[in-house]
Formats: sequence, C-alpha cells, structure tokens
Amino acid sequence: MADNSKIAVLDSSLTDRLPISSKTLFDAKASKSLTFDSIAKELGRSEVAVAALFYGQAQASAEDVKKLSNILGVPESKLAEQLLGFPDRGRAGPMPPVEPLIYRLYEIVQNYGYAYKAVLNEKFGDGIMSAIAFSTKVEKETDEKGVDWAVITLRGKWLPFSRF
Amino acid sequence: MADNSKIAVLDSSLTDRLPISSKTLFDAKASKSLTFDSIAKELGRSEVAVAALFYGQAQASAEDVKKLSNILGVPESKLAEQLLGFPDRGRAGPMPPVEPLIYRLYEIVQNYGYAYKAVLNEKFGDGIMSAIAFSTKVEKETDEKGVDWAVITLRGKWLPFSRF
Amino acid sequence: MADNSKIAVLDSSLTDRLPISSKTLFDAKASKSLTFDSIAKELGRSEVAVAALFYGQAQASAEDVKKLSNILGVPESKLAEQLLGFPDRGRAGPMPPVEPLIYRLYEIVQNYGYAYKAVLNEKFGDGIMSAIAFSTKVEKETDEKGVDWAVITLRGKWLPFSRF
Amino acid sequence: MADNSKIAVLDSSLTDRLPISSKTLFDAKASKSLTFDSIAKELGRSEVAVAALFYGQAQASAEDVKKLSNILGVPESKLAEQLLGFPDRGRAGPMPPVEPLIYRLYEIVQNYGYAYKAVLNEKFGDGIMSAIAFSTKVEKETDEKGVDWAVITLRGKWLPFSRF
Amino acid sequence: MADNSKIAVLDSSLTDRLPISSKTLFDAKASKSLTFDSIAKELGRSEVAVAALFYGQAQASAEDVKKLSNILGVPESKLAEQLLGFPDRGRAGPMPPVEPLIYRLYEIVQNYGYAYKAVLNEKFGDGIMSAIAFSTKVEKETDEKGVDWAVITLRGKWLPFSRF
Amino acid sequence: MADNSKIAVLDSSLTDRLPISSKTLFDAKASKSLTFDSIAKELGRSEVAVAALFYGQAQASAEDVKKLSNILGVPESKLAEQLLGFPDRGRAGPMPPVEPLIYRLYEIVQNYGYAYKAVLNEKFGDGIMSAIAFSTKVEKETDEKGVDWAVITLRGKWLPFSRF
Amino acid sequence: MADNSKIAVLDSSLTDRLPISSKTLFDAKASKSLTFDSIAKELGRSEVAVAALFYGQAQASAEDVKKLSNILGVPESKLAEQLLGFPDRGRAGPMPPVEPLIYRLYEIVQNYGYAYKAVLNEKFGDGIMSAIAFSTKVEKETDEKGVDWAVITLRGKWLPFSRF
Amino acid sequence: MADNSKIAVLDSSLTDRLPISSKTLFDAKASKSLTFDSIAKELGRSEVAVAALFYGQAQASAEDVKKLSNILGVPESKLAEQLLGFPDRGRAGPMPPVEPLIYRLYEIVQNYGYAYKAVLNEKFGDGIMSAIAFSTKVEKETDEKGVDWAVITLRGKWLPFSRF
Amino acid sequence: MADNSKIAVLDSSLTDRLPISSKTLFDAKASKSLTFDSIAKELGRSEVAVAALFYGQAQASAEDVKKLSNILGVPESKLAEQLLGFPDRGRAGPMPPVEPLIYRLYEIVQNYGYAYKAVLNEKFGDGIMSAIAFSTKVEKETDEKGVDWAVITLRGKWLPFSRF
Amino acid sequence: MADNSKIAVLDSSLTDRLPISSKTLFDAKASKSLTFDSIAKELGRSEVAVAALFYGQAQASAEDVKKLSNILGVPESKLAEQLLGFPDRGRAGPMPPVEPLIYRLYEIVQNYGYAYKAVLNEKFGDGIMSAIAFSTKVEKETDEKGVDWAVITLRGKWLPFSRF
Repeated sequence: MADNSKIAVLDSSLTDRLPISSKTLFDAKASKSLTFDSIAKELGRSEVAVAALFYGQAQASAEDVKKLSNILGVPESKLAEQLLGFPDRGRAGPMPPVEPLIYRLYEIVQNYGYAYKAVLNEKFGDGIMSAIAFSTKVEKETDEKGVDWAVITLRGKWLPFSRF
Repeated sequence: MADNSKIAVLDSSLTDRLPISSKTLFDAKASKSLTFDSIAKELGRSEVAVAALFYGQAQASAEDVKKLSNILGVPESKLAEQLLGFPDRGRAGPMPPVEPLIYRLYEIVQNYGYAYKAVLNEKFGDGIMSAIAFSTKVEKETDEKGVDWAVITLRGKWLPFSRF
Repeated sequence: MADNSKIAVLDSSLTDRLPISSKTLFDAKASKSLTFDSIAKELGRSEVAVAALFYGQAQASAEDVKKLSNILGVPESKLAEQLLGFPDRGRAGPMPPVEPLIYRLYEIVQNYGYAYKAVLNEKFGDGIMSAIAFSTKVEKETDEKGVDWAVITLRGKWLPFSRF
Repeated sequence: MADNSKIAVLDSSLTDRLPISSKTLFDAKASKSLTFDSIAKELGRSEVAVAALFYGQAQASAEDVKKLSNILGVPESKLAEQLLGFPDRGRAGPMPPVEPLIYRLYEIVQNYGYAYKAVLNEKFGDGIMSAIAFSTKVEKETDEKGVDWAVITLRGKWLPFSRF
Repeated sequence: MADNSKIAVLDSSLTDRLPISSKTLFDAKASKSLTFDSIAKELGRSEVAVAALFYGQAQASAEDVKKLSNILGVPESKLAEQLLGFPDRGRAGPMPPVEPLIYRLYEIVQNYGYAYKAVLNEKFGDGIMSAIAFSTKVEKETDEKGVDWAVITLRGKWLPFSRF
Repeated sequence: MADNSKIAVLDSSLTDRLPISSKTLFDAKASKSLTFDSIAKELGRSEVAVAALFYGQAQASAEDVKKLSNILGVPESKLAEQLLGFPDRGRAGPMPPVEPLIYRLYEIVQNYGYAYKAVLNEKFGDGIMSAIAFSTKVEKETDEKGVDWAVITLRGKWLPFSRF
Repeated sequence: MADNSKIAVLDSSLTDRLPISSKTLFDAKASKSLTFDSIAKELGRSEVAVAALFYGQAQASAEDVKKLSNILGVPESKLAEQLLGFPDRGRAGPMPPVEPLIYRLYEIVQNYGYAYKAVLNEKFGDGIMSAIAFSTKVEKETDEKGVDWAVITLRGKWLPFSRF
Repeated sequence: MADNSKIAVLDSSLTDRLPISSKTLFDAKASKSLTFDSIAKELGRSEVAVAALFYGQAQASAEDVKKLSNILGVPESKLAEQLLGFPDRGRAGPMPPVEPLIYRLYEIVQNYGYAYKAVLNEKFGDGIMSAIAFSTKVEKETDEKGVDWAVITLRGKWLPFSRF
Repeated sequence: MADNSKIAVLDSSLTDRLPISSKTLFDAKASKSLTFDSIAKELGRSEVAVAALFYGQAQASAEDVKKLSNILGVPESKLAEQLLGFPDRGRAGPMPPVEPLIYRLYEIVQNYGYAYKAVLNEKFGDGIMSAIAFSTKVEKETDEKGVDWAVITLRGKWLPFSRF
Repeated sequence: MADNSKIAVLDSSLTDRLPISSKTLFDAKASKSLTFDSIAKELGRSEVAVAALFYGQAQASAEDVKKLSNILGVPESKLAEQLLGFPDRGRAGPMPPVEPLIYRLYEIVQNYGYAYKAVLNEKFGDGIMSAIAFSTKVEKETDEKGVDWAVITLRGKWLPFSRF
C-alpha cells in the first residue's frame, strides 16, 4: 500500500484542465512511488521544473523524454507524442487560487506587490523581473527550535523598458 | 531638481486606495530624495518591509515611528497618529495586477502554483507556507556577461494542517 | 501620544464605504484611547457587537446612544442623528476579502462549507443556521506552551425550511 | 428504504468538482446509512473533520484509511489509492456560496469581518487567526423554549506578523 | 403527440447542473403529460413547491416520495434513492439570470430592493424577511379587459436581528 | 431627538449612487420624522412606490411633486428641478445584494426562479410577468402565536412572446 | 459537397449549451443545404424567428413542428418531443459576446444605450420598449456604389411604468 | 416650473462617468426645456445622434458646435473647449445594463445574437455589420388599437472578413 | 519520433472549446510533421491565417478545403463537412489570457491602448482600425548581436464614424 | 478656437484614473494645439511613446522633461516633480476595453492569440515576445483606391523560457 503522506499525486477532478500528459506522468509516478526530488535528480533539472512539467507548465526536451521514459517506465513513443508541442501554460488552477497553499503565494503578491515594485525600481530602474528568463527553487530550513521554514527563491533576468 | 530615475514615489492616482500615512511618508521621502535602501538601513528593517510600511501593508512599531520622524523630518505626533492602528492590508492595487512588474509575480503563482504545492507537500507534508510568519528580501545579481538578475526570496514558517 | 499597538482605529481609505457615524465613533475612540472591550463592558454588549456597531453593521438602541455619548464624549444629539435609521449592512469591505485576517475566515467557509452543511443537516434536518437570530463572541486562550489561540463562537437559531 | 431525512449524501451534480474518493465514501456511507457522527466516533476525529475528509478538504492518515475501510466496507487498497496524496482544497462549491446554509456563514464574514479584525487586533496585536493550525466543531443547543440553536466554534492559533 | 404548449419540461442543456432526480421526475412528468398543478393537488403541496422539488430546490418527505411514485409511475425505491439527502440549493441557473422570465424577478429586486428594505424596516424594525421560514404561491388574475396578470405572493417570517 | 428605531433614513455612504433628489427627500423626511406609510397615505400611492420614488427608482408626477412639497416642507421648485426627468433605475445597490434583507429576496429568485418559470409557463403559456406594468405591496401579518410575517405581493401583466 | 459559404451550421463546440433540438434541426438543415430564408418562407415566419427557434430561443407551435418535419425530413414525433416545452432562453453564447458580429450589436447597446433611453423617454414617457411583445427582421440593402448594408429592425410594444 | 414628464435630463449620479460637456449640454437643454427632437431638427442630425453627442458618445463638428451654441445659449468658446477632442466612448453606463429600458436592448442581443449571426451570414457571407459605418433611428408607431410601438432601426455597412 | 520542439500541436485540454475541425486539422498536421509555414506556402495564405483557420477563427474557401485535403491527407468530404459554415470566433481561450505569450499581447493593448487611440485619432480623425478588413503577419528579425526579435504587423482599414 | 477634429485631448472623466502629470501635459498640449506627431519629432521619440508618456504609461528621461518643458511651456520643475518616479502602468482604461477603437485591438488578441502563439512557437521555439524590450509604431497607408489603412507594428525581443 502506497504511503499517502509522501507522494504528490494528481487530483482526479483536476484532470480535465490539464494536458493528457499530466495523467500519464502522475499515474506512472504514483505507481512507482517516486518523489519529484528523486525524478529531478535523475533528470538533472530542478524539482519545481519537474513538477511544472508534470502539470503541463514547462517543456520537456527530447532528452528529458528519453530519461522520463526510463525513470517512469512509460514507452518513449507515448511520452513523446503526449509531450509533443509547446506548453499551453496558466490553466492548471483558478485565479484567485482557492487552494490554501497556493493562495498564500497569491496573497504575498497582493500585499507586497507595490513594495517589490518600489524596491526593484530603485535598485534596477524602470523595468520588470522576467518570469520567462527565470528559475525558481524550493528549500527546507529548520531553525534552532526545530521549526521548519520553507524558502522559495525566484530569480529572473531584469528587463528594462525599451526607450522608443 | 530631483532625479526621476532613482526614487520611487507615490502615483497620485493611487492615493485614494491607501491610508493617509502613505502620502505623508512618500511626500517626505521624495522631498528628501531618500531611497528605501537608505531608510531601511537607518531603521534596521528590510527594504521590502519599509516599502510595505509606506504602502500601508506593514505595521510600524513605536520605535519605527520615532526613527522615521527623524529620518523623514515629519513630526512624530503626526506620524504616530497616522500610523496609529493595525494595517488594513491587501487593497493597494487591483488583482489580477495590471502593472507589468507586479503581473510577472502573479504569473509565477499562476504557472507554478501547483508545482510549488506538489514540491512543498512532498518536502513538508500536508500544510502551507505561512505568509504571516514570513519575511522576504530582494537582491541584485550581475552575471559574468554583465546581465542583471533580480532575486526575490520568500521565507515562511511551515504550518501543518491540524488534525481534529 | 497614543500607543499604536493597542487600539483599533479606522483606516482612512475605508471611510467612504462606511456611514458617517463610523468616523465619528472611531475618532472619539482613538482620541480617548478606548478599546472595544472597555466600551463593551460599559455598554453591556458583546465586544464584537460594539465593533460591528462602529462599522455600521449593527443597530444602536436609544439607550446605547445615550451611553455611547457619555463614554465617548460626543454630543448625544450628534450621535443620535448619525445613528438614526436602520443599518445598511455588508458593504464594509470587498468580497473575497483581501485583508489577510478576514480572508482566513472566508477560507474557512470555502473549505469547510459543505462539511458544515452535511453535519448540520444530519443534526437538525433541512434548514439553516440563522445569521440574524445570531450572536457571536471572540475569546483568547493560551495553551500550556504559552501559545495563544483565538476562539470565535457563532451561535444561530436553527430555521427549518417551511413545507408548503 | 433509506430514511432521506437523516443522512447527508452527495449531490450528483457536485461529483465532477470533487476528487473520486468523495463518490466512493459517500456511496458507502449511504448504502450503510451511517451518519458523520457515528463515523467520527469510530474514527476518533471530529464530525466536521470527517465530513471535510469526505468532501476532499482534509487529509486521511494511514490509520484513518484502515478504519474507514472497516466502517464503510470498502477495500483498503481502493481507499488508499483514492485518498493517496495531498488534498486539493477549496473547490467544493462556488464562492459566493449559493447554498442558503453556506451563504449564511459567508454573510457572517461579510458583515462582521472588520468587527472580528478590530477585536482580534486589540486582543492579540497585529496578526491573524490561523485557518490551518485550526479546529472546529458543531454543537446543538436547545433553549428553555425548545428552540434549537446551532453553535459553531472556530479555534485557530494566533499568528503575529513577523517583523523583518 | 404531446402538446408542447401546456407542459413544462426539463431543458436538456440544464441537466448537468441539477441532481439526477430532476431528470427522473421531469421525464416521468412529460411522458404522463402532467402539469405541476395536477401533481400539487395530489401531493397536497403548493405548485411552486412541487416545481422547486423537481428542480432539486426543495426536500421531499418520505410520504411525498410514496405519492410521487404513484403519480409518476416511477418505482418508489428509485425515487427514494435519488431524492435521498438534503437539497443542495441555488445552482439551477446562472445569476444574474439570462432567462427573460426569471430576469424580470431579479430586476424587481434590483429596482425595488432598497424600497422594500425601507418599508419593511419601518413596519417591523431592524431585521429580515426569512426565505427559509417562507412560502410562496402563484396566481392568475384576469382583469375586466380580459388581460391576464400574474400574482406572486412571498410570505416569510420576520426575523429581528438579535441584540448581543 | 428623533426615534432611531422607527424611521428609515438614507445611509450616508449610499448618497453618491443616487440622484440628488434622494438626499433632499430623505433629509426632509428625517427632519419631520415621517414614515413612508404616512407619506403614502397623503400622496395616494403605495408605500413601496413612495420609497422607490425616494430612492430614484420611480417617477413622480407633477401632482406628486406638489403634494410632496407640502408634506415635506421643501420648496416645490426645488423638488421639481431635482425630480425633473426620467428615473435612471437599477443603480441603488450592488448585485448580488450584500444587505441581508435584500439578499433574502435575491435568494428567493435564485432558488425558486426555475420553479416560478415552470409554473407560470403552465398557467399562462410562453411569456413573462412584466416588471413594468407592475405593482407591488408589503403587508404585515401576525399569526396566532404572535409571530410576525412579512407578505410581499408582486402583480405584473402577463406578456406572451410575440410570434413573428 | 456542400457549399460552405452559403449555409449556417451549428458550431460543434456550442452544442452543449443548447437544447438537444438545436443539433437535430441544424443537422437536418445542413444535410438538406437549406437556408433560413427558404425555411422561413415555407413556415410563414420571419427568418430571424426561425434561426432563433433553431438556437432554442423561440417556441415552435404544433403547426410549426408539423411543417418543420416535412421541410427537414425529421419524424414529427422526434421533433415534437425535443421541442416540447417552453424555451429556456438566453444561454446560447457568453455575454459580453466574443463573436465579432454579435459583439458589434452589443457595442451598439453599450454606446447608444442612454441615447436610446433619452429619445424613447421623450417620445413615449417613462417606460420601456418590450423585448417580448417584439418582432425583428434583417434586410439587405445595396447602395448606389454597390456597397452592402445590413438593416436590422427592432419593433417592440411600448410599456409605460405602472403608477401604484 | 418645468414639465418633468417631457424632457430628458442628466441623472446627477451619472455625471462623474461622463465628460464635462455632458453636464453643460444637459443643463442648458433643461433650462430651455428643449427636446432632442427639436435640437436634432435645428442641427440637421438624427435625434439619437444628438442624444449620443450629449452623452459624449458621438463627435460634434465645428458647425455643430456653432449651432449648439445658438440653440442652447452656451458660449461657443466654452462648448468648443469641452467638445474638443475625440469621444471616449462606451463608459456611460454599466454592462450588463441595470436600467430596465437599456436592459431590454441588451436582452435582444443575448437572445437573438446567434440568430442574427446565422441570418446575416447566409445573406452576406462571412463578416460583420459595422457599428462604426453605422446609423440608427427611433420611430413611434401607433397601431389600430391605439397601442404605441417603438421601432429602432440599425443600419450598418457590411464588412466581409479579409482573406489573407 | 516527432521532434517536439518544432511543431505546434493542439493542447488536449483545449479541444472542447474548439470546433471539431481543429482536432482533425491538428492531428493530421502532427502526423505529417508539418509547420504552418509550409502549409501556408502551399495554400497561398499567410501563416497566421492558416493557424487561425486551424483554431476555427478564420474561414476556409472551397479551394482551401481541396488543397488542405491534399496537403494533410484528410478526405476532402470530411474536411468540407467539418469546415462547413461560418466560423464562431473568439472562444479559443480565456480573456484575460493566462498563456504567457498571449498575455504579452493583451498587456500591450492594456498599456498602450489609449496611446494608440490618441495617435490614430490625430492621424485619421474619429474612427477605428478595422479588425475585419484586416490582415496580420509575423516576422523574425535577428539583430547585429544575434538577438531574435519578433515583429507582428497589424494592418486594418480605417473606418470613420458615420455622421447621422 | 481650437480645431476639435485634429487634436487628441484628455477626456475629463478619465482624469482620476491617471497620474496628475497627464492633466498637466494634455492641458498644455491642448492650449498649444500640438499634435503628438510634432511633439515626437522635437523629442526624438516615437509618436506612440509620447502618447504613452502623456497617459502615464512610459517613463520620461531627465532630458525628455527639459525638452517637454520647452515644447509645452510648462515650468521644468513642475514637470520634473510630476513625472518623478516610475510609471504605474496599466490602469488607464477598463479591460475588456469599452472604447470601440481599443476594443478592436483587444479583439485581435482574442481571435488570433492562439494563432500568434502557434506561429511564434514554430518560428522561435518555446518562449514569448517581450512587451518590455519592445517598441511599436503607427503608420498610415493609402491604397490605390484612396482608402486609408492603419498599420501598427509591434516589435519585441524574443525571450526563450529558461531551462532549470
């Protein structure tokens, strides 16, 4: 019996919003009881990128497909066909998010959005932090009292507004 | 003449959505040409926290009020009165954000929300990353090619769902 | 100088959404540094009811007006005129709430709404818990580890659907 | 014939919004004519928690799965597979709620939200009541006139905003 | 051939929003060419209540189920199973309504809402007219010129706001 | 001092949504402590119609203006000017309504809308009940147990869809 | 092979929003390559009314059913069953419309709505143009330069607001 | 005293949504008790166009400004300044409309939108009826029974989709 | 194995929003590994027009159908039937767009909309740029540093507002 | 008297949504009867950029401020103060746009969004066209028949999604 407190699986009511590859990938992951951490290590990508790929929010290279086929035990041709094409991002869940964990991230944008803008503008000038030329990671810290802290790092290229 | 490429000021059309303290604080900051960085250093708080305080999204302690009075040259009694009370957060701008910089942060939540959830759940179990027992900072990195990158770090206490 | 970490005051950007009495009441409360707890005790009403009255969400009786006049030092005729009439409830803040504290209450309804319905239906039959024939209170508990817990109690008359 | 005035079942038009486990659990509950109260007692959890678990809004532990298998007569492996993973909360019903019973709870937040905030701030300082480190229960009271009252208690850990 | 100008049937595109009982009941009604008026008379309930029951907006008692089984020629066990449970009200159609007939009722609330509130407050004090302890009926009047008028009566218990 | 439990007045935060005549009329009504009932009797119109006129939702005839001038003690020329023109209806409050009393009426449409449609269609054929060739009234009933009931009657001309 | 530039057919992705009769009618129309113009002539109704009937927005009489059965070659009993009942109008497409042709009509209401109201009020007094006691037609005009113009005529009974 | 049943004036609560010229024009029209019909005749434009111009939804030519100055008794320079520029259309009222008269027009688009599209496509091919190369008029018809009918004509150039 | 970094395919979760022809066309395109560029050249149409046709946003002529049948290897009769009729445009994706690439185009309209209007008005007078008598193309430029730039050209007929 | 068919001015009802600089700039532009074209030439920037700057959607450099002061006859210190800071973009008008000209641009995104994505993906791979490293221009073409065409060019840097 799989340990339901360790493995992230795909909520069945979410399937219709996601590309068909999501179901294939999550089903294989569940049947092998793999974590994103272990897949990420074999794939040589970040954990969040792998999870994003599973949710149809990131692209797999041909090499990723080959490796995923081995890791998950899914025929390469099937994976290739389902992962064929360019991701259609942004439709995994509703906005504003209703999932409490995701809402907290949204709330950070809601509360600190203008503060980030003001600080970034003063540091970099008029522009934006790219969400495309961008990477992100999740880390776990435990403080001296044994309390766990989640640390999310967002790193994006600074794009100044063109003058025209 | 103030250098308009260095100092973040308050957009005049935003004033009505914010507490009266925002105008007082930003006006003083503009007239003294202070950056959030310099205020943060004097106040002993993070830059983002100071900007959030200016936008009415964070609370000032009595000591903050005293120091701000000195830094900004605003009478302490006036600041105290306007900063009196508990912040009414979340109303600075519309959601979804229309400001391009803030939208990019929103888009990160939209695209990677479920990926963050999956990775955090696997690392920590069933729960959320707090946006209250929380701190954040903004850093600037320049890579070997001279390209600037913005790095935003979110650090929140992990809160497991209570079993009841 | 008032202690800004003790007294709830009216956010200046909220004034336009509320009846004129809210400003009168909160201004007097701030200038006298009164808590809702102390006003509630003098008025013989619950703390939440008094706060609701200040936000224009509950009705004041003629006797409440007289007592409030004494407590707050506002002329009774002024209070009477402004509190004249039946409250126009529900417009204090946006829904979904953007204030983090209020959002948490909203989230409880979002997550547990159907669970409450199922349990209430099994306990009482087909009907609703009234929000009109209703009272509520807030209490503070501190557990053995010194951690504070907020306890909100909602008590409403059960109204069965009429058969017709 | 089951007594349709006693047992909460799953509305057929709601099935698509919920995880597949909801149908499994509610079908078994209906066929055994079990109330949440009786299940909660056998499971050693609160009634609302059990109903939330049925609606996919709370997590089952491995022991819960084993017990539920016995109580409901559903194979443990089937339950384990369907309850595998972390709940994707918040999507059971629309917001604002259209169900009259759930709307009344929403209305309480709408009307008394700022009053709760003001009172909680004065009692605890700047922070929120957690909806995660949180428990809730429903009780039935009958007053001296024989009128039934529903009492809902919300108990959440107080989380002060971090200073940073 | 059924007379399509006499009998209200279920629009096929509405089926998914309603409980499964709606289809069962409306199909049987259509095949027997029964009006709500005739069903209501046999059931001893009001016409609107019967129609609401068909749309899943009102509860059937055990005796209603038995009678409906006879009237409609549907096995009692099937009806009992589908009508088992507490109605999940409010999801039959979109709001604001797009159906012209239902929109007119909505428009009455939109235009006269505050007028009703003012008049009811003056007549009854601070409170609401219950929509739960409530009944309603529809009547047809023909004036002296032969013009038909629809008369809808709404009758709800007055609930004064509790003082607390 | 006016008795604030008897007279409906204009909520000050509502003024901006309403025509200027609303303030004039309500101010005069408040200063004379008049109920809608007493004004309606002098004007020879229904109570709800008078309240609707005060909220800018119904038109005043030249004779109404003359009478209102006498009843309220407002110069006829001022009233005429402000009531000049055709009402711009429907903007008094938000939809869905947030005021609990008005929400209950909205909820009746939400829950019983399709039931009304089905019953009206069977009684009258394909058409609508007019909200224009329409009148409405509010009555108070007290049952044998001393409980008050509000009765709202809606009476509208039946308009069959034209065949073309 | 059918000429795809002459015949309006049913978009396959629209089917679920419409009653089942829409598919039956449009399929038959397509297989017979009939225009609405030719059907309207045989039916003795206006072209727009026929198209509305196909989209489930208008009612068919028993005689319409008989004639449609002949024109389209669909068994009368099948048509009768599917067209049985009262149309559930207004759900064919989203509002605001996204289809460019339909959006232009919406835009006319958006831009000229108050102008129509002002002109109609001056011509007729306080009231509305009925959309129920209503007919409409579409005509094609070609000007002297050979340019085509579409002319849509809306004709509705004037309904004055009742005085009550 | 002006006759309030003849002249359309500007609702005072609408002023903020409209350009400043609207107030100038409507005030002058009211003080001279002019109908749109009489202004249109002097201006040589259609009644609806004049009303649209008053609501800021149509452009005035230099000659219109001169004539309006004479008709309304407003200095030409003031009118010219306020009517200077290109109209910013579409913001006069909310959509969906809440005004009953304007809603009826919206409802026609909602109910008959796809029917108009189908008929226009069959008559003209793939394209739209322009709302820019467009004119409209309102007429009053009285039938043999003395009943008034409003007739609105929409005439727009047919624009075929370009092939590219 | 198809090269998933070259060919645009249809996201499986998008299928339900699009006409049935979209699936047919994209499936054939994928199985033949054709780019829009190569199809456009054979068809003699622009690349964007071909992609729009695949997404059901543009019409195919009879000759397009014949050519597409050859290029894609789909029977002409099947294509003809599915492409029969007039496109029902505008429903391919949600607005505001959630896909990052499409959102950037939306953001351009949001940020520069009024600037375009002002410049176009000054250049052309009062009117609009048609989106119907319209063509568009996408080009790729590489600057001296080897950086790629996308260039989108929008070309629409200028339509002046009719004077009436 | 200014020629109202040549100069774009600021709609008075738009002022509140824009920064204070918009009013200053537009007022000066109107009083000098300057077009964006003439300002752009003196400023050495594109016409659209200048209009965007006037609407608060683009940043002015210190040199722009100096030149604008000369061109418009506004004191440099006043301009500098009002243009001080980083633009708060995206709030000039509502989305979806209600202005017909701006709506046409929005409609292009709505109809052709997925087509642009497919074509851009095939030409450039997985990424987006930047709206920040971006320029745009408006041109006027007149074809051989004397018909005017507006040509809008969008040119943005291609940003590939980072692999992480």
